[in-house]
Amino acid sequence: MNTTINNKIRVGLVGTGRIGRVHARTLQQLIPNAHVQVVTDMNSQSAHECAALYGIPQVVENFEQILADASINAVVICSSTDTHAPFITLAAQAGKHIFCEKPIAAELSAIDSALAAVDRASVKLMIGFNRRFDANVQRIKQAIDTGEIGTPQLLHLVSRDPSPPPIAYIKVSGGMFFDMTIHDFDMARFLFGEVESLYTAAAVLVDPAIGNAGDVDTAVITLKFANGAIGTIDNSRQAVYGYDQRVEAFGSAGLVHSENWYPNAVTLNNAHGIRRDLPLNFFMDRYLGAYQTELAAFIQCICEDTPPLVSGYDGHISVVMALAALKSHHEQRPVFLSEIAVAKAV
Amino acid sequence: MNTTINNKIRVGLVGTGRIGRVHARTLQQLIPNAHVQVVTDMNSQSAHECAALYGIPQVVENFEQILADASINAVVICSSTDTHAPFITLAAQAGKHIFCEKPIAAELSAIDSALAAVDRASVKLMIGFNRRFDANVQRIKQAIDTGEIGTPQLLHLVSRDPSPPPIAYIKVSGGMFFDMTIHDFDMARFLFGEVESLYTAAAVLVDPAIGNAGDVDTAVITLKFANGAIGTIDNSRQAVYGYDQRVEAFGSAGLVHSENWYPNAVTLNNAHGIRRDLPLNFFMDRYLGAYQTELAAFIQCICEDTPPLVSGYDGHISVVMALAALKSHHEQRPVFLSEIAVAKAV
Amino acid sequence: MNTTINNKIRVGLVGTGRIGRVHARTLQQLIPNAHVQVVTDMNSQSAHECAALYGIPQVVENFEQILADASINAVVICSSTDTHAPFITLAAQAGKHIFCEKPIAAELSAIDSALAAVDRASVKLMIGFNRRFDANVQRIKQAIDTGEIGTPQLLHLVSRDPSPPPIAYIKVSGGMFFDMTIHDFDMARFLFGEVESLYTAAAVLVDPAIGNAGDVDTAVITLKFANGAIGTIDNSRQAVYGYDQRVEAFGSAGLVHSENWYPNAVTLNNAHGIRRDLPLNFFMDRYLGAYQTELAAFIQCICEDTPPLVSGYDGHISVVMALAALKSHHEQRPVFLSEIAVAKAV
Amino acid sequence: MNTTINNKIRVGLVGTGRIGRVHARTLQQLIPNAHVQVVTDMNSQSAHECAALYGIPQVVENFEQILADASINAVVICSSTDTHAPFITLAAQAGKHIFCEKPIAAELSAIDSALAAVDRASVKLMIGFNRRFDANVQRIKQAIDTGEIGTPQLLHLVSRDPSPPPIAYIKVSGGMFFDMTIHDFDMARFLFGEVESLYTAAAVLVDPAIGNAGDVDTAVITLKFANGAIGTIDNSRQAVYGYDQRVEAFGSAGLVHSENWYPNAVTLNNAHGIRRDLPLNFFMDRYLGAYQTELAAFIQCICEDTPPLVSGYDGHISVVMALAALKSHHEQRPVFLSEIAVAKAV
Repeated sequence: MNTTINNKIRVGLVGTGRIGRVHARTLQQLIPNAHVQVVTDMNSQSAHECAALYGIPQVVENFEQILADASINAVVICSSTDTHAPFITLAAQAGKHIFCEKPIAAELSAIDSALAAVDRASVKLMIGFNRRFDANVQRIKQAIDTGEIGTPQLLHLVSRDPSPPPIAYIKVSGGMFFDMTIHDFDMARFLFGEVESLYTAAAVLVDPAIGNAGDVDTAVITLKFANGAIGTIDNSRQAVYGYDQRVEAFGSAGLVHSENWYPNAVTLNNAHGIRRDLPLNFFMDRYLGAYQTELAAFIQCICEDTPPLVSGYDGHISVVMALAALKSHHEQRPVFLSEIAVAKAV
Repeated sequence: MNTTINNKIRVGLVGTGRIGRVHARTLQQLIPNAHVQVVTDMNSQSAHECAALYGIPQVVENFEQILADASINAVVICSSTDTHAPFITLAAQAGKHIFCEKPIAAELSAIDSALAAVDRASVKLMIGFNRRFDANVQRIKQAIDTGEIGTPQLLHLVSRDPSPPPIAYIKVSGGMFFDMTIHDFDMARFLFGEVESLYTAAAVLVDPAIGNAGDVDTAVITLKFANGAIGTIDNSRQAVYGYDQRVEAFGSAGLVHSENWYPNAVTLNNAHGIRRDLPLNFFMDRYLGAYQTELAAFIQCICEDTPPLVSGYDGHISVVMALAALKSHHEQRPVFLSEIAVAKAV
Repeated sequence: MNTTINNKIRVGLVGTGRIGRVHARTLQQLIPNAHVQVVTDMNSQSAHECAALYGIPQVVENFEQILADASINAVVICSSTDTHAPFITLAAQAGKHIFCEKPIAAELSAIDSALAAVDRASVKLMIGFNRRFDANVQRIKQAIDTGEIGTPQLLHLVSRDPSPPPIAYIKVSGGMFFDMTIHDFDMARFLFGEVESLYTAAAVLVDPAIGNAGDVDTAVITLKFANGAIGTIDNSRQAVYGYDQRVEAFGSAGLVHSENWYPNAVTLNNAHGIRRDLPLNFFMDRYLGAYQTELAAFIQCICEDTPPLVSGYDGHISVVMALAALKSHHEQRPVFLSEIAVAKAV
Repeated sequence: MNTTINNKIRVGLVGTGRIGRVHARTLQQLIPNAHVQVVTDMNSQSAHECAALYGIPQVVENFEQILADASINAVVICSSTDTHAPFITLAAQAGKHIFCEKPIAAELSAIDSALAAVDRASVKLMIGFNRRFDANVQRIKQAIDTGEIGTPQLLHLVSRDPSPPPIAYIKVSGGMFFDMTIHDFDMARFLFGEVESLYTAAAVLVDPAIGNAGDVDTAVITLKFANGAIGTIDNSRQAVYGYDQRVEAFGSAGLVHSENWYPNAVTLNNAHGIRRDLPLNFFMDRYLGAYQTELAAFIQCICEDTPPLVSGYDGHISVVMALAALKSHHEQRPVFLSEIAVAKAV
């Protein structure tokens, strides 16, 4: 097992929905040393469609059949969140390297048991925090790492979706902190290091139905980092002008910030004002390059036997932060991440 | 008294330091229906210099002499903060209209007693929250008021000074929340309405000497508005790239934000990058227009007998917010402004 | 004569129309060492209005009365173009320093005879090419002079008015090259040095009535500089989005370019696009600072007895360029400036 | 012949240099209904490398062998310019659809004979003016076509390479007007319609060796369009800040312009200025999307039997413009395109 054929990593993919197809296409068309050999989905028709679209030779009934194929080196898990932890465990037991979409699970116990299985099997697990691989985020990370902004002091993450997901999704996703802010929790750590405590100010301002579903749709989360820096995450489920994804990092020697990406660099001046088109509106357009770089990094870490760039621990801690954010929202006080850790220990 | 000569409001000005001279010049040169007749300062030489610079006919020994001059219609108070409340009281008793720099005082009792004197005398009192009159802030206010961004949901105020004031100043100013953030407290209310509670995350990241003086130099303050919106104030005593003054207001129908002002609109592209000069670095350059508009509004409210655009209550509530911010910082919990009000009632 | 009173240069101003009032206000309010003592205008009511607005003590019947006043040190000529050359001559004979709006005249012989009078009288003459004093143009000049763009190679001047002047004005102004492009001719020389030849591509695209009046409303003029560089001037009488004034200078080491100036630095994002307000639309708003710096430079060159920053020769050569542009337009071939000079010699 | 296999257009490609590989990769990986079956190159090793990189099944000795393969539907010609016209003729005679890089040839007679062969064979010929397919250019075209800028009046094309090609290349390319400006000639027509006459101001400012090779390296070409509009093309062989590709189109109702594309949307503010990284520096990065859209359009016009979006006539007329630009440069006068056409007739 784990012997590559023609020097290509052979991949099995589970979950051929929106993100699954992005990954299937990326692996098949854009990453020369990967080959998607097989896909599966609860919806068999979707799996067949995906296979036809991207020239994937095999469609199987279930994930177990993928794991049973000794020629498969790695699995890409894009199925629903509740399957992530059990699929990671199964894949690890089958000795497959694993790429899994975030979050691993909504409960820390499930995450930790999956991570333990990965540890025992000594396979690679990489979590899909794609934004780390965005050209803007990479450039900001570089500015921080090379000292271009000096000692980091203030971080401001703006992350606003163009429109809310369906209420049905919100009910199963764990809510905004788990399905959306989790990217920002990871990005905060990626850029400024570990967070010690956080405070949530959240509200239902976009759609009362979201509140009725037990979630919030607007939030500002203040982060205190271990290095003394302070951060804010600014979230909304609905930015009518499009997908708003900006980062601003301030330090003793300067400020670095990123703008949104646009479909063109064209400006129109007329009698009514100076105008440009809306930014890229869909996460798959906005982060197209990031998805590609992310999967290339996953394939590379297998080929070169190096640690994955986003670890299982990164997946764990982002969920700790989401739990802390929720606790802070409910108790209306700053919450230390160690309080969540204590809960876990119990 | 209060009869204008040649249809000009005759002004006496106390405090001929930096901001005093800005106001003296503005009134004398740029506001046709104002005339600065007399100035005074504890430093007599400074008063004489100011008079010579801007063609001010009289220099007197103290503020009381200004008040004794029946030809004077209005006073402009630019002396040190501890004199603001007593000078307001005295001026009101003398029947003069009053323009006073912020903050009125660090203690609510002093503020409220001065405001009571103003009420009794039925003179006009306007507080120097100049940023309200900045062209950017005015345009953002207009966008909010006319519904261009729909229902306000998120506000983000960036307010960073180019470099910290002297430690000696920090010791007497009441600290960052009183001498610097107070502008942002006022702006938050001006743009999004009243604040119900706030939470402070603050630190000493710029200079330990500031911490030794009992102050912080970096802060993020989360605001919860009465209308349900959420805001953040992002402060630093030191932005090495210059005076950073930006506003971002987000609502159900859009986002409006302002950039810094620059000395020129020139960009240089060379082999090393795309470059432009630093933004206007000094508050007197950055807010030059705002100072002029502000004083014109003060003179106009006297001439037309209309309410001042920035009231004594605005001066009061901004100090309540500074006290709440300090309390939140010390107790590390969200603080309701009503807690401060209760303290006042006691 | 020419003895200042209270160390102020005493100014007499002729022509109290739009630009005359800008200069009157600037001199009176913003330049401490100048004092406008007297104004005159063919329209006596206009002169009185201007005097009242800016506190100018005297209004006289005609320019000669200004010249007869020995206490006047300098004159500012803002009357119609046909009066410029004779008024310069008269003022020079009266020993007054002279600031004159552009152009000096439409005929080189008139210009040269006026310049000869100035030479004989050894008074200072400065021509009102205000754009040289704009913060953007100054910064671009600095970039060129300090080598930030290396050896200058390409210059592109965009100069478009928000709307055409009245046809009546076009008939007396000498046409677009004389009343509008002349600023660009001067700017080209100011930035890149002397021009050897030029080629005009011009058309009537905005309003046929302009063509009927014998003028064009749209033009691209290609310049060949003595240093080998190439330039373009891009003119239109009507940019519906406002006053469009941009400069782009390209060289062996880089590119420097300027954007328009805006009334605010605010951007609005909504569901329809990313929008900002139109740029400053009126030349008096756009070049407000430039007018002030220009007149301050004039007053300073008198006080310090230094050469004016814009000379009579600058006034002469800009008209040579306008004549060459017209000749190129009519003959549809590149025209050398020396062809115009030869004409003069004859 | 011309029957597709598996509904894919089977392509043979000649010339596996830089651009050839871009096209090979694009066709093979990114255009689902194309399949590159065979490649050839004078340099056999290059052809084999290219085949290995992109999974191309066959490498043959020469172009004729490609044409002899009846399963091939279309050819992509990326070999040196001197081969374009003969290869087009041969391919047309073999009944293959043809995509050919620009320019078709440096002599009109060669072009016209190739186009005649295409006509006789009724195959499709598309010329590689990739810039038409750039997102910025497409958006500007849309603004013009939908009336967003009203009647077109002024066009300004900036097209500057990051650094000159080797002198050896310049000697065979036909010079700057043929290898570089030709893109701008095509873009001018694409955006504003046919050109009637042009005037060239050109110089050797970058490198004397370019002049010694008989070429220029800096040029401004003024265009007069049939519709009365005026345009400028602003070219340099060396922009040290990177590949500078901007378009500005001005009309009766507004202005539309495009900026360069950048590798990230990140800005760094520090004590020395406001800075961003250089724009995309290499034409293959800058126009990556355009190359893909271009080839997709070629494949689509075959599949759907529609006219190619860039015709042989477009290839012809761009060379007429290059010849006119050269003639104007040599004779230093405006040249009508009809003068070139007359020459052809003779």
